[in-house]
Amino acid sequence: MWLIVGVTVLPLQPVPADEAEGVWTIVVAGGSGRRFGRPKQFEQLAGRRVIDWAVGDASQASEGVIVVLPPELAGAEGTAPGGATRSASVRSGLAAVPQDAAVICVHDAARPFAGVEVFRAVVAAVRSGADGAVPGIPVTDTIKVVDGSGTVTATPERASLVAVQTPQAFRADVLRAAHADGSEGTDDAALVEQAGGRVVVVAGSERNRKITLPADLAWARQEAAS
Amino acid sequence: MWLIVGVTVLPLQPVPADEAEGVWTIVVAGGSGRRFGRPKQFEQLAGRRVIDWAVGDASQASEGVIVVLPPELAGAEGTAPGGATRSASVRSGLAAVPQDAAVICVHDAARPFAGVEVFRAVVAAVRSGADGAVPGIPVTDTIKVVDGSGTVTATPERASLVAVQTPQAFRADVLRAAHADGSEGTDDAALVEQAGGRVVVVAGSERNRKITLPADLAWARQEAAS
Repeated sequence: MWLIVGVTVLPLQPVPADEAEGVWTIVVAGGSGRRFGRPKQFEQLAGRRVIDWAVGDASQASEGVIVVLPPELAGAEGTAPGGATRSASVRSGLAAVPQDAAVICVHDAARPFAGVEVFRAVVAAVRSGADGAVPGIPVTDTIKVVDGSGTVTATPERASLVAVQTPQAFRADVLRAAHADGSEGTDDAALVEQAGGRVVVVAGSERNRKITLPADLAWARQEAAS
Repeated sequence: MWLIVGVTVLPLQPVPADEAEGVWTIVVAGGSGRRFGRPKQFEQLAGRRVIDWAVGDASQASEGVIVVLPPELAGAEGTAPGGATRSASVRSGLAAVPQDAAVICVHDAARPFAGVEVFRAVVAAVRSGADGAVPGIPVTDTIKVVDGSGTVTATPERASLVAVQTPQAFRADVLRAAHADGSEGTDDAALVEQAGGRVVVVAGSERNRKITLPADLAWARQEAAS
């Protein structure tokens, strides 16, 4: 099995048929890298690009992968053109996922170190009855809610907060319904929550950071080498 | 002016009388470094200890500094013994702050890179009428609120969230009142908020990270060298 991503052809690992059956993953790489200065998902990281790490994990846990790329790079089989917003990009990816998919994961191309285990964990949570499942890690900072004037209106108890990551897994019908009206959300889980779906949190990892700033890429290169 | 911290005697910078007048800062260094493995505030960072960086900033912005130390290290003038919790340590420091202090700042010893400007900013906000002021930076992760079963109950809008840091500045009477009943809070601002005080957020900085894990110290050493 081979997957064409941009101009690189990646050999994929054999899929364990039982766990991956009916699972499709959308890897979202449509961003322009506004904060980074350029599309960070195509930066080199220990001999391959950041996106190749993300797709590699996804391909081991999925029957198929759809990579959402900047429109000028999309076109090959297994790709879809990015939209104006992240949610629009996910919808573009959803349109390319076969109708018989049972579970759909959405993953950020800029997270090279998710690991296959976290894919399996979110998929397992959905197969166990949740509408969606997301990886989360404890929040170490004190978080406050502020109003428009910069005045603190609440300090949520830190123990009740999690910082969530991707991959996020969903029942396919639930995710498609949540995106049907073109909603925008902070993440896909928020759209499913707004539609009344039950989303659960599974253990994420500190290592599963998103590459957002050049310092994150420097960290990732150290991490990949260690 | 000299300040005795543990076994090191630090020469302090001259205090700009206008801005620092009536300002006292409590530097909390009573922690055991449970997550770090040992008290991280005494680790070396570019030729001095982490705590010396924090005290150095505080001393430039304050008329006086009280350093809350593990009880076995406290005793010298300008120090106070740490308590069983962070809030108890702050109360120990408060007891050593002169009654005529007008503004009291509380700062984590494990934040070496706060910088004097952020002290001035939080103090200025309190002098302008707020009960308290804290530095905050935008939250980059999606944060979710979960219940005891790990089910997501809310996804607060990210634009309304800030991750807060120290130094936190307060009207002295307000901070003393908030601590009077021995309350515990995530941070001092939360106690003031619970007592009905108005706390505002000023711009913090990405650099003002707390040293929590060994990786944070490695980062700080790179940062100090650059």
